[in-house]
Formats: sequence, C-alpha cells, structure tokens
Amino acid sequence: MAEIQSSRIVLASRPAGEPKPSDFRLERGPVAAPREGELLLETLFLSLDPYMRGRMSAAKSYAKPVDIGAVMEGEVVARVIASHHPDYAEGDLVLARSGWQSHAVQPAAAVRRVPDAAEPISTALGVLGMPGLTAYVGLGNIGKPQPGETVVVAAATGPVGSAVGQIAKLRGARAVGIAGGAPKVRALTEEFGFDAAVDHRAPDFREKLASACPNGIDVYFENVGGAVFDAVLPLLNPFARLPVCGLVAHYNETAPPAGPDRLPELMRAVLTKRLTVRGFIVYDFSADIPAFEREMAAWVRDGAVRYREDVVDGLENAPEAFIGLLKGDNFGKLVIHVAP
Amino acid sequence: MAEIQSSRIVLASRPAGEPKPSDFRLERGPVAAPREGELLLETLFLSLDPYMRGRMSAAKSYAKPVDIGAVMEGEVVARVIASHHPDYAEGDLVLARSGWQSHAVQPAAAVRRVPDAAEPISTALGVLGMPGLTAYVGLGNIGKPQPGETVVVAAATGPVGSAVGQIAKLRGARAVGIAGGAPKVRALTEEFGFDAAVDHRAPDFREKLASACPNGIDVYFENVGGAVFDAVLPLLNPFARLPVCGLVAHYNETAPPAGPDRLPELMRAVLTKRLTVRGFIVYDFSADIPAFEREMAAWVRDGAVRYREDVVDGLENAPEAFIGLLKGDNFGKLVIHVAP
Repeated sequence: MAEIQSSRIVLASRPAGEPKPSDFRLERGPVAAPREGELLLETLFLSLDPYMRGRMSAAKSYAKPVDIGAVMEGEVVARVIASHHPDYAEGDLVLARSGWQSHAVQPAAAVRRVPDAAEPISTALGVLGMPGLTAYVGLGNIGKPQPGETVVVAAATGPVGSAVGQIAKLRGARAVGIAGGAPKVRALTEEFGFDAAVDHRAPDFREKLASACPNGIDVYFENVGGAVFDAVLPLLNPFARLPVCGLVAHYNETAPPAGPDRLPELMRAVLTKRLTVRGFIVYDFSADIPAFEREMAAWVRDGAVRYREDVVDGLENAPEAFIGLLKGDNFGKLVIHVAP
Repeated sequence: MAEIQSSRIVLASRPAGEPKPSDFRLERGPVAAPREGELLLETLFLSLDPYMRGRMSAAKSYAKPVDIGAVMEGEVVARVIASHHPDYAEGDLVLARSGWQSHAVQPAAAVRRVPDAAEPISTALGVLGMPGLTAYVGLGNIGKPQPGETVVVAAATGPVGSAVGQIAKLRGARAVGIAGGAPKVRALTEEFGFDAAVDHRAPDFREKLASACPNGIDVYFENVGGAVFDAVLPLLNPFARLPVCGLVAHYNETAPPAGPDRLPELMRAVLTKRLTVRGFIVYDFSADIPAFEREMAAWVRDGAVRYREDVVDGLENAPEAFIGLLKGDNFGKLVIHVAP
C-alpha cells in the first residue's frame, strides 16, 4: 500500500481567553504503518464539542491537557482502510478517539463499531453518541425529573440541550429551553417540542425566564453557567437538582469575574433550598450505555427525539468552527465532514 | 392551680449583622391554662443552636422567620406540670419546640417523650437529639464515608461536628477536625478521637489543613462556610461529597463579601472534580430516626461516641450565650439550664 499522507490539526499555543486561529496549526505528514492488532483509519466525521476548550488549557481537570504540538483530541467516525486485527475488515465503520486528523493508526481495542442505529452515521457523534448519552445519564442519575416538574436547559438547540429537553418531556416533565437568537428560540418549541423557550440575549431575559417557569425550576441541567445560571438561581425550587456537565460561558475566562463574591450566596441557596449540585462526565455512568443505546435509538427512529446537525466541510475549517462553537454560532450538533 | 407566671425571651428587633442584646427582650406574664388535649410544661433545658440566627432574619428560608415580639424558637426538655391528655402524666419528661420560655402550653401531639437513653436528659438536645441526628443523617445519606477516606468537619467540638468526626471514625474513615483555639483543637484528638485537628485561627491554617489531609478530602461536612471552605475547596478529591447543613460564618453578613466573584470557581470545581454539593435539614431524613436512636444510644453508652456540654444557667442569660455561640465562644453543646 502506498504511503498515506495525513492532515492533522495540532495545538500551536495555549489560548489566553478566546482561542484564536493561530492557536492551531495544520500539519501534513506520512502516517505510520499499522502493526499487529492495529487499524489504519480514515476519518469521515470529526465531532467538535465545548469540552475541548478545557483540553487546550494547562489547568488541572478530569482529563490531562493536550500537549503543545500534539494533535487536538476528539471523537470521530472513521472507515477502516487497513486492518491488522481479525475482528475488523477494510470498509468497517468505527468510532475512535483519534482526534483532529484525516488518518490515524489505532489499536483495535480502542475503537468500537458504529451502532447500526446510527443513520446517518454522523449521529453516532451526536444524538446517539456522547452528547445524547450525556443528556441521558445526567437526567437519569442526577436530574431525575418527575412528571409535572419543570426542567430548564441552556444551549438548548445543541446536541446535549435538545436531548435534555426531549427526554424530560418523555419522562412527563415540562421542558423550558434557553438559546441565543430568534431562529434557535423558535426551533425549540416548533422543532424540538419544548413547552417554552427563552432568548438569553433578550434585555428582559430574567423576567422572560421567570414567566416561562411559573412553578419554579426543579431540574436545571447546567452546561453554560454565566448569566443564565444567575437568572436560574432565584427560580430554583426546594430540592431542585443541578447536574453540572459544562460551563461554556466560563471556558474562555482568564481571571475570576469582578465582585461581589457570590459563592456564599450560592451555598446559602444550597442550604436553604436543599439543592443538589453535582458535577459529572459522561464516562461516570458507562453502565447506562446499553439502556441508552436501546432507548434513544427507538426514540430517534420513532421521531420522539429529533436532532439537528451543523455540518462543516473540511478539516482545515475545524479551528474556525470550534471558535464559533464557543460563541454559539453553530445551530445543532457541530461536526466536521472530513472525507466522503 | 395557682396562675403561673412565665418568663420568655422575645425577638425585639431583627439584627443587622451580629445580634445585639437589645435585639432580645425578656418578658414576664401569666401562662394560659391548658385545654383538653394540651399539656402545661415547665422548661428544664433550652437548646441554643446556630440555625436560630436564620429565624431572626426576614429572609426566605426553609422555615418562616420569628415575628417581632414573638417568643424565640427552640427545642427544650420540659417537665409536664399539668396534663389534659391521657398519654401524659404530671412529672413526665418531654421534648417540645416551645422556645425560649420558662413555661408553655403545648398540644400533646406536638411533644414526644425524652428517650430513656438520654442520660443526662440534656443529651436529648445534643448528641442524642437534633444535632446528633444531623450528623448521622448528613453522613449517612450524603457524605457516605468509605473506609480509608478522609472526612473533614469544622466547629468540630460542637455537637454536630464532634458527632460527625466520631461517626466517620466508626465507619472506618479518617476524621480531621477544625476548631478555634488550642484547648478545642487539643480536645479533638485527645477527647473525641479525631485523627488530626487544625486551628482555623492559625496564620498558616491552609498549610496546616493540607498537611492534615495528605490524601485530600473525600467528605467535607459543611456547617461553617467562610475561610474554612476556602481552605477545603482546593483539597477536595474527585467525587467528594459535601453535605451542607450550616454556614455559621455567613449568618451575620449584611451584604455579599467583596470580589472577585468565586461562584464560577466553585462551579468549575463541581464540574472538574465531579463534586456532590447537597443541602439538607435534619427533618429531610426523619425515616432514619429509629436507626439513629438505636445506634447512637449504643455508641454513647459504650463510650464509642463522646460528647461535651456547655451549660449556662438562667433563661435571662440565653441572649448573651447565643451571641457567643455565633462567635464560637462556647465549648460543646450549648444548653440553657432554665429550671432544676
């Protein structure tokens, strides 16, 4: 087989605040030949997700940062183009964590097959993949919405938020979505079936949110933080649950915001309202994956859960698309179409 | 029966910041005669607890505030001096929520007998009462210490804190206590059996706490907030649990502290460390009362759980003692000895 040239996007520098295009660098070079037990993969779709901002920083987190000069991390749907493992054949479609690159060699043990239900295959990175699973396990294990309760989620047209709202509805709860701009807000009720939707860019956002939650908030699925959280906090009901899976409004911060210090106010709310605030990442609940794959696949097939994708062509456009993702420029699950 | 004159301490004004003696007023007056189904009680011991500061404020909380001019709320051990209910006889000892007063009329349904195990009877307000139960249910339902884990608690010579540390030890965990001043710190290891103790007044408190927790902190039982929480936060391990039952360091605050705003920092820690921060009050876990009474009574009887009381004589001294409690002046469970 002729030597394959790979394109890859590496971390050129750690961003101070908002990432810039110069924090990334596109490189080309030959791909190493796969050895016994390994697969040579061609990336078809690359998932871009807010958590990647954390990996660009040196700060301690649940995962170690990407090294300067290393390929940006990320999950992909790929096609096997050479297999040195008996379980996989040329042409098989797999999920791999091989990052922002057109080709990669991976041990067979580090990949898994794209589920049959993933149709189109890019949904294995969205509603039927990690973002859908994040919504499913965060609601199921922490949010635990009860029939008639009010569930609020921001970034609600995104792959996590739209699944949160729709699963909440399927569990009998009332879903209120928050998004930025009229087209997204409209899609929440018209396309995703939320009971109410609020634009966080509206000058009277706080009042609008309060009106949309006449019985208060029982579950707030936290994936943004910032001004949305500030508006949510006074509306929380006693015994409200807050699964915390992301804080995208803060990812680009270089210093704590100006005072006053509201940490005691939050703790006082935790105490007097007996709140449960709990952080999680999707892999904390791997045991739920079989139930998720069964239940979510059926919901998507039946149209009970809808999704939207924002597909950007070309690996070279990933940095710009990712910078936009952190600002809410995308509309739906952002994936890079790397190869046909 | 001759008309009985009662002494009572009422809320004279809502404190701005630290309560002052003039926020309380001692009144005397006749006690109404008990009617059918009611008991006339003579208070023997009155429990003083930090939560009472919240009841003095008009701010919304889990319980409604004490009205201006109304008797301060609180739990007491009392003797029945006249019974109009078949279940109780003169001389019976009961627990009642009749407040800061020498005598009171209560419906029989609102009192319960002092458990036999409460010896002396004042322990029904401390280690065998609400504070002991708070420690028991907060650890059992939220903290869930595992053998070998590190449990940290502040106000650790107090009735909640000392029970938290000793129960943690009985569950196989390592207990680290925080208190103010050398005598209390010494008592933590020598009297209550904590594995380590730290003085929050020490200039190098943060370093001392870090040294006392070489493997980090798995459970932080929050009853103070403030500078102690600030020192605890960076030491929390992934998946740490924080039962939040009090924030005494903040009860006298009249405005949020100066910036920077550390609310996002706390939420980031919740996310990246997958913390569980959960507020509770003791009555959220009433189902655990039988198990508590059985297990704690045995521990106290066997000497496995020790306690300390700070007994102040005379109802008229309750305001001053309460003001001191909020500053940590007491040493052990603070009770007012109202009548012999």
